[in-house]
Amino acid sequence: MSKQTTATISRLSTSDDAFNHRLDALLDWEGVSDKAVQARVEEILASVKQRGDAAVVEATNRFDRLAATSMDELQLTPEQLKRAFDNLPAEQREALSSAAERIKCYHERQKPSSWQYEEADGTVLGQKVAPLDRAGIYVPGGKAAYPSSVLMNAIPAHVAGVREIVMVVPTPDGVLNELVLAAAHLAGVDYVFTIGGAQAVAALAYGTESVPRVDKIVGPGNIYVATAKRAVFGQVGIDMIAGPSEIMVVSDGQTDPDWLAMDLFSQAEHDEDAQAILVSWDAGHLDAVESAIERLLPTLERKEIVRESLRKRGALVLCQDAQEAITLINRIAPEHLELSVAAPETWLDDIRHAGAIFMGRYTAEALGDYCAGPNHVLPTSGTARFSSPLGVYDFQKRSSIIHCSADGASELGKIASVLARGESLTAHARSAEYRIRD
Amino acid sequence: MSKQTTATISRLSTSDDAFNHRLDALLDWEGVSDKAVQARVEEILASVKQRGDAAVVEATNRFDRLAATSMDELQLTPEQLKRAFDNLPAEQREALSSAAERIKCYHERQKPSSWQYEEADGTVLGQKVAPLDRAGIYVPGGKAAYPSSVLMNAIPAHVAGVREIVMVVPTPDGVLNELVLAAAHLAGVDYVFTIGGAQAVAALAYGTESVPRVDKIVGPGNIYVATAKRAVFGQVGIDMIAGPSEIMVVSDGQTDPDWLAMDLFSQAEHDEDAQAILVSWDAGHLDAVESAIERLLPTLERKEIVRESLRKRGALVLCQDAQEAITLINRIAPEHLELSVAAPETWLDDIRHAGAIFMGRYTAEALGDYCAGPNHVLPTSGTARFSSPLGVYDFQKRSSIIHCSADGASELGKIASVLARGESLTAHARSAEYRIRD
Repeated sequence: MSKQTTATISRLSTSDDAFNHRLDALLDWEGVSDKAVQARVEEILASVKQRGDAAVVEATNRFDRLAATSMDELQLTPEQLKRAFDNLPAEQREALSSAAERIKCYHERQKPSSWQYEEADGTVLGQKVAPLDRAGIYVPGGKAAYPSSVLMNAIPAHVAGVREIVMVVPTPDGVLNELVLAAAHLAGVDYVFTIGGAQAVAALAYGTESVPRVDKIVGPGNIYVATAKRAVFGQVGIDMIAGPSEIMVVSDGQTDPDWLAMDLFSQAEHDEDAQAILVSWDAGHLDAVESAIERLLPTLERKEIVRESLRKRGALVLCQDAQEAITLINRIAPEHLELSVAAPETWLDDIRHAGAIFMGRYTAEALGDYCAGPNHVLPTSGTARFSSPLGVYDFQKRSSIIHCSADGASELGKIASVLARGESLTAHARSAEYRIRD
Repeated sequence: MSKQTTATISRLSTSDDAFNHRLDALLDWEGVSDKAVQARVEEILASVKQRGDAAVVEATNRFDRLAATSMDELQLTPEQLKRAFDNLPAEQREALSSAAERIKCYHERQKPSSWQYEEADGTVLGQKVAPLDRAGIYVPGGKAAYPSSVLMNAIPAHVAGVREIVMVVPTPDGVLNELVLAAAHLAGVDYVFTIGGAQAVAALAYGTESVPRVDKIVGPGNIYVATAKRAVFGQVGIDMIAGPSEIMVVSDGQTDPDWLAMDLFSQAEHDEDAQAILVSWDAGHLDAVESAIERLLPTLERKEIVRESLRKRGALVLCQDAQEAITLINRIAPEHLELSVAAPETWLDDIRHAGAIFMGRYTAEALGDYCAGPNHVLPTSGTARFSSPLGVYDFQKRSSIIHCSADGASELGKIASVLARGESLTAHARSAEYRIRD
């Protein structure tokens, strides 16, 4: 066991007695905030609720080391966004535009429709789908300011038909990311405020003099943002509480080990808590990937982050066969699943839980992160058991439609009357009985 | 203003200067639990997580005044459920079966399908829809034990294809509701535990020796249940944090005032916090409904609850016209909206926010509560702005499918490379670049 503490990446085998225990330890992630964080967040939420803009400006100056005197200084104009877009090097502008177009195309297919049907007695039942009025998008600032995330959050809202999209992005020490602004322009964001943290979540949830109150807040953030989102849930909708990003790669041994090493690195470079796991039933192949990791790791720009991530949370896992790999997939319910195998389509029916499935040797996760089309905001930490990728459906809601004919109401009234009396809700029963014909 | 404190129900007018203020006060509902409740819930969650069954049994004995010695005594067998169903009076058995059949029919229409499409270069994109493995259903016990809620929660899970449905229902002082057990049998519930409160939520979220861990917990409960659900959110999925039930009725003045009074009562009889609001532009009609309320209220079995609910949270609102009624609907975003008007279908396009829309004079909310087909678990307290009725979609999740052809990966790799380098994620870039053809 002492080997694991010095190795670049852990080696695990499903045939090892301690395997289940070791895998659990590796996967364990407690995203819950401590009492100090909770108290601080509650304080910020309360102050923004009470004092609006003034509280947001104060908190922003304090946490992002700014010296704003009013919210005007913390808002960007549409012209600023457009200028950022126009000023991009052509190559970046075109890449961003191509990505946006593909993301839009894919998400157009997700749009559910309203539907209804009529019964024999003329009663009509159905469901109406409608967009949210206003969506709030949290975009992290600082070291993890990603223009691709702006596209991935704002475009589905746009496709859904949301009337107004309000974006918040902190600018610690006043540093603005021009690519982020350009992406906001491209994605059709209506308002951008350069605020972040719990104060930004509070402003979106409650509204202030300057920040319009939204109906739902989406987008990842640090522990303060996550804690604030959990607290305002119910007041507004939220997408999910995101944990660190993770990938599980399954290889049949036929993919170039260098490719796989780089695929693992691309996850690990996000941050020290990111998780990269490779599973194969070919022990020699795992050796080859480990060698590739050792050889390529020193060539990476973000090698310190990658080394720490692989050491703490990475693993090369030897399993018995493809069937056992599938069992592992469903147990882990990975955010990203790369099926680097022949005929990956034959695996699909058996995979019950995964955020996104990257099929075949050519489909690197990085392609999906930026431009394949599907969303890169995905359920982490095993929550793919019950959560979906961010999508158009997150920016819409449904209303049930019930339109009883006189005949329909009379028949349904008889059933409702019996059941309501069984529940001792006699006003319900009498309300239904008024509609029964003599 | 002194009139309101003695009247059975408040009268408001949109032309009153204080209207907005008074409406806000009426709608105000703070469902947030205080620190004492939070601390108690956290303690229960931690003890169940650590000690499993033993902690659940202890808490159940304490809060529900039982004397169970093991979880065996807190579990019902399928035979017990079937017996409860078989022993129902024929009229109840048939009413319950008819309701179940209609609910199933409606929810079958909600099932989304997996989809995919192929691009010119052979790249395939899509989304796979899959059911949750296991769903937990919380059914309140005591004074609000509703068999209809068992149907409304379990049938969509069943239609979604959930493998196992685990129901919890507290039995304070050992009182079992045979109708609830019968509904559980009818709806195909797999396990029933007679536990409730935060301890039941914890058992479902973490699993114990006896209670299987679920992937999502749905169903309403008291403040302890709501607080526990919020706390375990992320560990498992949850449906929503339900507030008190409410109805908004819009009448054009042509519906029998007795019918409308009873429709308002049917909401108010749920509990003292329930809310019933009637809006009309016909002042004489509002007078007539008020008279009907005064006359009929004393005839109700649950008159004390209804009186308190109407006094605290009810209102008859005079507005200018249909257009202003629509503005009020979208501002309130009611859980239940009854359009007791001629040609209600002409209103639909303008209604942006409502949980369920009951159209026309015949469609009493009570019909929808029991047997029309659509779900009666609906977003409360204005959350229809961003939430939907409980549905099949709550028991399914999606996985993105990305399968790049060699040509597709090469083209996408070029875009991804530019964007990844723009974000300084160079391992992402290199992973994509490996797939670019020379």
